[in-house]
Amino acid sequence: MEFISGVKEKETVTIDRIKSGGYEGRTVKVEGSVHTIRDMGEVAFVILRKAEGLVQCVYEEGKTDFDLSLLKEESSVRVTGIVTKEERAPHGFEIRLLEIDLLSQPADALPVAISKWKLNTSLETKLTLRPITLRNPMERAKFRIQEGIVRGFRDFLHSQGFTEIRTPKIVARGAEGGSNVFKLDYFNKKAELGQSPQFYKQTMVGVYDRVFEVAPVFRAEKHNTTRHLNEYTSMDFEMGYIDSFEEIMEMETAMLQYTFGLLCEEYETELNMLKVTLPNVSNIPTVRFADAKELVAGKYNRKIRNPYDLEPEEEVLIGRYFKEEYGSDFVFVTHYPSKKRPFYAMDDPSDPKFTLSFDLLFKGLEVTTGGQRIHDYAAILNKMEARGMNPEDISSYLMIFQYGMPPHGGLGIGLERLTMRLLDEGNIRETTLFPRDVTRLEP
Amino acid sequence: MEFISGVKEKETVTIDRIKSGGYEGRTVKVEGSVHTIRDMGEVAFVILRKAEGLVQCVYEEGKTDFDLSLLKEESSVRVTGIVTKEERAPHGFEIRLLEIDLLSQPADALPVAISKWKLNTSLETKLTLRPITLRNPMERAKFRIQEGIVRGFRDFLHSQGFTEIRTPKIVARGAEGGSNVFKLDYFNKKAELGQSPQFYKQTMVGVYDRVFEVAPVFRAEKHNTTRHLNEYTSMDFEMGYIDSFEEIMEMETAMLQYTFGLLCEEYETELNMLKVTLPNVSNIPTVRFADAKELVAGKYNRKIRNPYDLEPEEEVLIGRYFKEEYGSDFVFVTHYPSKKRPFYAMDDPSDPKFTLSFDLLFKGLEVTTGGQRIHDYAAILNKMEARGMNPEDISSYLMIFQYGMPPHGGLGIGLERLTMRLLDEGNIRETTLFPRDVTRLEP
Repeated sequence: MEFISGVKEKETVTIDRIKSGGYEGRTVKVEGSVHTIRDMGEVAFVILRKAEGLVQCVYEEGKTDFDLSLLKEESSVRVTGIVTKEERAPHGFEIRLLEIDLLSQPADALPVAISKWKLNTSLETKLTLRPITLRNPMERAKFRIQEGIVRGFRDFLHSQGFTEIRTPKIVARGAEGGSNVFKLDYFNKKAELGQSPQFYKQTMVGVYDRVFEVAPVFRAEKHNTTRHLNEYTSMDFEMGYIDSFEEIMEMETAMLQYTFGLLCEEYETELNMLKVTLPNVSNIPTVRFADAKELVAGKYNRKIRNPYDLEPEEEVLIGRYFKEEYGSDFVFVTHYPSKKRPFYAMDDPSDPKFTLSFDLLFKGLEVTTGGQRIHDYAAILNKMEARGMNPEDISSYLMIFQYGMPPHGGLGIGLERLTMRLLDEGNIRETTLFPRDVTRLEP
Repeated sequence: MEFISGVKEKETVTIDRIKSGGYEGRTVKVEGSVHTIRDMGEVAFVILRKAEGLVQCVYEEGKTDFDLSLLKEESSVRVTGIVTKEERAPHGFEIRLLEIDLLSQPADALPVAISKWKLNTSLETKLTLRPITLRNPMERAKFRIQEGIVRGFRDFLHSQGFTEIRTPKIVARGAEGGSNVFKLDYFNKKAELGQSPQFYKQTMVGVYDRVFEVAPVFRAEKHNTTRHLNEYTSMDFEMGYIDSFEEIMEMETAMLQYTFGLLCEEYETELNMLKVTLPNVSNIPTVRFADAKELVAGKYNRKIRNPYDLEPEEEVLIGRYFKEEYGSDFVFVTHYPSKKRPFYAMDDPSDPKFTLSFDLLFKGLEVTTGGQRIHDYAAILNKMEARGMNPEDISSYLMIFQYGMPPHGGLGIGLERLTMRLLDEGNIRETTLFPRDVTRLEP
């Protein structure tokens, strides 16, 4: 009988290991894809692409035991060669090739030059050829940073006593209601795709006090814009025993501080490649919804058309105002009008036309919506009644209030939007691996 | 202008902080839900439930400034009292109450006694009242352990150079095909819910060499069993540059070793509550599919009816065989017949009737399916042709082979199944927060 007992050491080495020192002059094996080949005649530079970065390999006629003409871009290889110091090469070394082992070959030449520093194609082409264009080092760096954001969110909340949960995406009824839900047939019952884990995360506050989830949400919005997706990743948290809704904003601010710190420490290569400057989040200004409207109307000479909602252009101006006046890329806009918030939002006791809620704007774009929730059974029934809603439709959610819930609140962060603003991209599709929009269902 | 600068210290303390020492005799504030009240006349024990565990509080007539009759099970409170050593109380201390601050009140009395050590209800009732029954300490402990499994999976793979990805769940076509897909209308186009991130994770191997994802998958299976869900969490990884498919099993074994270590270190309370003994995974036996069938047919006197598939009962017997003969709760069954594996599975060059694939059985239940994949464009086209499949249907997936892919393979682990076996539960619904089955769409 054979047994498996864990990972065996590979005979190939990583870039990190070579960089750690002591490899100069030694013969190593390295694997990777052929990113590009620069043939100079008797010498050729074969650039390998690995997850960690690029490796410069030097092919020399007579010294390398391989027919160079067999090598193509996107061939997968395992090479044997001598590590040699070379300041001009990535990571400060190159590999003088002795042998090349061909692991696999492409059938066709690439339709786009992914080895260029920056992909020189339209967004449309980039997305259609996404499985290939993501191999471009600048493209893939974006999603490494996105990974870092999620890690930061999770690790920080874990340190604050939050429990991670996984809630269903096929639901009987969406949390937000309205027309933007995807419907499906579920064994001859009507079902929907979850627009938000709202009901479930509130439910789980009754179980674990503080919870979070990072998962897909689905919105059947019919408009194609640069900042909407039909499927996106929502980073949600919900916390109980809050004294005020400011605690939610405090938690988010601390999370951003931690996350940007993590990016700085562990994703420096990618930040540098993409020339990202991490914003200062040591202090984030807050402004009431009504005041924000006045401020930008005053400063930028703009008429207030709709007192109950922020138009995208107003969000941009609020972002600009707080950048100009306070040097901040972020601003919390608080106390949104009650009629524009969902029924579960808690109204401000001192003025119930407004709610104890907030959005976080990042460079003029809403990246977070949050607030305190109603926790009292009678209060939520009253609010539903006032809105003409039927409690029986969501009785398994209302159950948590009937049998007791602590004061609580939370938020949802759009991961792709946050990444988009951090990387100063103009279109949310640039920071989504395989975006879903009104016209795009593949790849 | 006001600013938010991060989390402020709360005036309430956690159990961990009290346990850290130096609190005896001191007055503290603690918040929680009233889990149960034991009224002994002049003294009453008020047990608070917090995420971290239970806290025993002592109410004394004349000493506690509060009307005890106002307190109900599931009231949320903030109490003030003196920390006193008490060996018989949870965590070795109790709080002698001075004041009780009522934060919120339930409207009705609980329909089930969640404060009992073990919930004494049917699975049906437990699931219908899930938002409430999860508050039972034994119930919630299960999902803390589930959190730990996911953390172990992610943290270990991260340490092995894997990148975390997020791929779409609304897809044009499922990876596995067949009839068990949920269909939906996507802006007048036909779409499906992803049965697996298979195509996407393979695609991302071309980008990051090694990737993983933890996300929901959807299977419209019409049968209601104790081990199937219609929506479950799949823990997937995929790795490039493998020399053999054994490397995938080695990675999984090492991941399980790490994960059980993490559970042992950070989830000891929950493991003890649920009386879980972590299995030994230092060595996991492997057996070929055909040999496994022979072995159990011989030992347990069982006829082989279907040489191409394992019946659930056979899986149970294989599990029993390796427990009896080698003391192992896990066994890798390898080299499944080609006709029972998807088209992308790599056939064994030494006998193409079988594949370089495996399942991992845990106490006789399949918890993982994995294997090496075809990476050559011509080879995958040939296999599709032999199966009568049309390459045009999945051209954006086939693109990765056309333009070059390294040898690779991976696996998918069913999180709820792994948790179910670890906790020795008899029904997968016991280890799913809000299960989805043929009849259950709520809560």
